[in-house]
Amino acid sequence: MSANPHFRWHPLRGEWVAYASHRQGRTFLPPPEYNPLGPTVDPAFPTELPEGKYDVAVFENRFPSMTLAARDAPASIVETLPAKGVCEVVVFTRDARASIATLSIDHLDLLLQVWGDRTRELGSRPEIEYVLPFENKGVEVGVTLHHPHGQIYAYPFVPPVPARMLEQQARFYREKGKGLLADLIAREIADGQRVIYQDDGAIAFVPVCARYPYEVWIAPIEPVATFEDLSPSQRRGLARALKTVTLKYDGLWNRSFPYLMAWFSAPTDGKAYPHAHLHAQFYPPYRTSDRLKYLAGTELAGGMFANDSIPEEKARELQEVAVSIEETVHF
Amino acid sequence: MSANPHFRWHPLRGEWVAYASHRQGRTFLPPPEYNPLGPTVDPAFPTELPEGKYDVAVFENRFPSMTLAARDAPASIVETLPAKGVCEVVVFTRDARASIATLSIDHLDLLLQVWGDRTRELGSRPEIEYVLPFENKGVEVGVTLHHPHGQIYAYPFVPPVPARMLEQQARFYREKGKGLLADLIAREIADGQRVIYQDDGAIAFVPVCARYPYEVWIAPIEPVATFEDLSPSQRRGLARALKTVTLKYDGLWNRSFPYLMAWFSAPTDGKAYPHAHLHAQFYPPYRTSDRLKYLAGTELAGGMFANDSIPEEKARELQEVAVSIEETVHF
Repeated sequence: MSANPHFRWHPLRGEWVAYASHRQGRTFLPPPEYNPLGPTVDPAFPTELPEGKYDVAVFENRFPSMTLAARDAPASIVETLPAKGVCEVVVFTRDARASIATLSIDHLDLLLQVWGDRTRELGSRPEIEYVLPFENKGVEVGVTLHHPHGQIYAYPFVPPVPARMLEQQARFYREKGKGLLADLIAREIADGQRVIYQDDGAIAFVPVCARYPYEVWIAPIEPVATFEDLSPSQRRGLARALKTVTLKYDGLWNRSFPYLMAWFSAPTDGKAYPHAHLHAQFYPPYRTSDRLKYLAGTELAGGMFANDSIPEEKARELQEVAVSIEETVHF
Repeated sequence: MSANPHFRWHPLRGEWVAYASHRQGRTFLPPPEYNPLGPTVDPAFPTELPEGKYDVAVFENRFPSMTLAARDAPASIVETLPAKGVCEVVVFTRDARASIATLSIDHLDLLLQVWGDRTRELGSRPEIEYVLPFENKGVEVGVTLHHPHGQIYAYPFVPPVPARMLEQQARFYREKGKGLLADLIAREIADGQRVIYQDDGAIAFVPVCARYPYEVWIAPIEPVATFEDLSPSQRRGLARALKTVTLKYDGLWNRSFPYLMAWFSAPTDGKAYPHAHLHAQFYPPYRTSDRLKYLAGTELAGGMFANDSIPEEKARELQEVAVSIEETVHF
C-alpha cells in the first residue's frame, strides 16, 4: 500500500485523517551547531534558507503531511483522497534566540502581513479551502527546534474546528444580524476583568469560556474576515497585542512560556463569510508553573474540557505581569 | 465569583466547559507507602476504600469536576449552569501492581458488568444524559497514581465527541438502514489486515482511519447499544479482547504501555438509539518506542489529525506480539 500523503475518511467522526509515513524517514547528521532554520553558513551543510539577509522567510515543509504533488490515494475500505494541501514553515526572524515576545512591533506587523500574504496566495489555489497559520512553541508541545518559527497548513477542506466555529458564527449572524465574536468581545470589554491588552483596534483577553487555564485570544475589536482586510492601525494593534501577551507569558514565571497559537480566518473557498472574525487562540500546556494540563478522558474522548481554575484568576495573574512593549529589540 | 463546579457556554465552539477551582486545594501528607486506592491498612490514614475484600470498587471522586450537589452557577457574560454531573473512580482490583493486561478473563468480565451497572444506575438519574467510562494509564497521560483504576464521567448532556459520532451513526442508519460501526467492522473483517483479535462475538482492530498510531477499537461484532444489552458470550469476548490488546501493548516494547481508553455507548436520555454501537477506543500517546505523538497545530487548532504511520504497519506490529490470554493471574 502506498505511503504517499493521503487522506482517509473517518466515518464515525465524519472527518478526514492525513497519513504520510515518509515523514519518519528523515536522516541527516549535521554538525552540533547546525540550525536548519538559520541562514546557510557552511555550504557543505546547507540549511533550509540561503545565505543573506531576510526578516521573515517562508518555505515549503520538506516532509509535509499534505502536498499539491500528492497523487494516487490507496484503495481502502473507506474513502481515500490524495492529500492535496500545502505545509509551509514560517521563520519569524534570522535571530535564533528571538521569540515573538522579543521581536519589534514593526517586525510583528510584518509577520502579520506575511500571514496575510500566504493566506491570499495559498487560498487562491483552486485546491485550497482553508489556511491555518500556527506556532507550536516549546518542548512541552513537542518542538525541539528552538529557532523562532511557525507553520502554515493549507487544507483542501475547512477542517473540523474552524468548521464548527464558523457554523456557530453563521447561525448567530443569521439570528442576530451581527458577529458572534464581536458580540463576545463587546461583553468582555464591558465586563473588563479578563482583558489583557486593549487599544482602539485590537484586544487580548482570557476568554470567559477558556478551556486551557492560560488560554488567551487576540482579535481586532471590529469583525474583519481575514488578515488582508485589516487596516494598518488594526494590524499594528494586533502586533502590540501579540507582543504584550507573549511578554506577559514569559514574565509570569520568568522563563520561556510554551504554547500553541493558531490564527482563524475566513475560508478561502470563494464563498462569502460576513460572520467570520479573524482571531488568534493561544493554548498553553501549563496549568501551574510546575504542572501540565494533560488532555485525558473527558477532553479527548468526551470533548468536554474540565478546567481546574477559573478564567478570572488566570487573567489577574497575567494582568499583574508588568511589561513594556516599547522595550523592543531592533535588528 | 463562586469557584463551585459550574459550566460556562463556549459560544464559538458551541459546547460546555467545566470549571472546578476547588480541585487545586487538595493537601494531604500520607506516609510514602500510602496508596489512596488500596484497602485501608492503617486506620490513621484511611484510604478511599474500607478494609476488606473486594474485586472491583467504585466511589465518588472527592474532588469532582461535576457533582449532583452543585448549586448556583455564577452570573457571567455567557450562559452558566451548576455542573450537575457525577465523577466516579473505579478501582479495577485490590492488587496495586495489576493492570487490565494481568487481570483474569473472569475479572475483566466482572469489570464490564460494573461499567454496565454504573451506566444504568447513573443514567437512570434524571440529570444524567451520558455516561463515559474511561481509563487514563501512565505518566505520559498525566497519571501518577499507578493502582489500576479508571473513571466514569456522567454528564447532564451528550458531550461533543459522542454527540458527533452518534450524529454520523444516525445519518448512516437513516440512509442505509444499518449500523455505521457494524458496517465498518464487517469491512475490517473482510479486509483482515488490521484485525488484532476476533471471536464469535467480539473484535479488536486498528481502525483503517486511526488518528493515533497505535489506536485500537474493541467492539461487539453485532451492534449492541450499551453494556447491559451484551449477551454473556459477547461480554466474555470483549473481556478476552481487552486482555489481548493490553497484553500486546505491554509486549510491544516489554514495558507498561500508556493509553487513554474510553467506552462509548448510547446516551441515557431516554430516547431510542437503534444506531448506537457500544465500543472502546484506545488512544496511546506513543508513535514509536521513544517518541510521543504531540497534539499540536493541526490536531488541536484544526481538528485534523496527521498520522506519521499507516494503520496497516502498526496493526502488523501488534499482530506480531505473541500473547496467551490463558496465562492469567488469579486472586
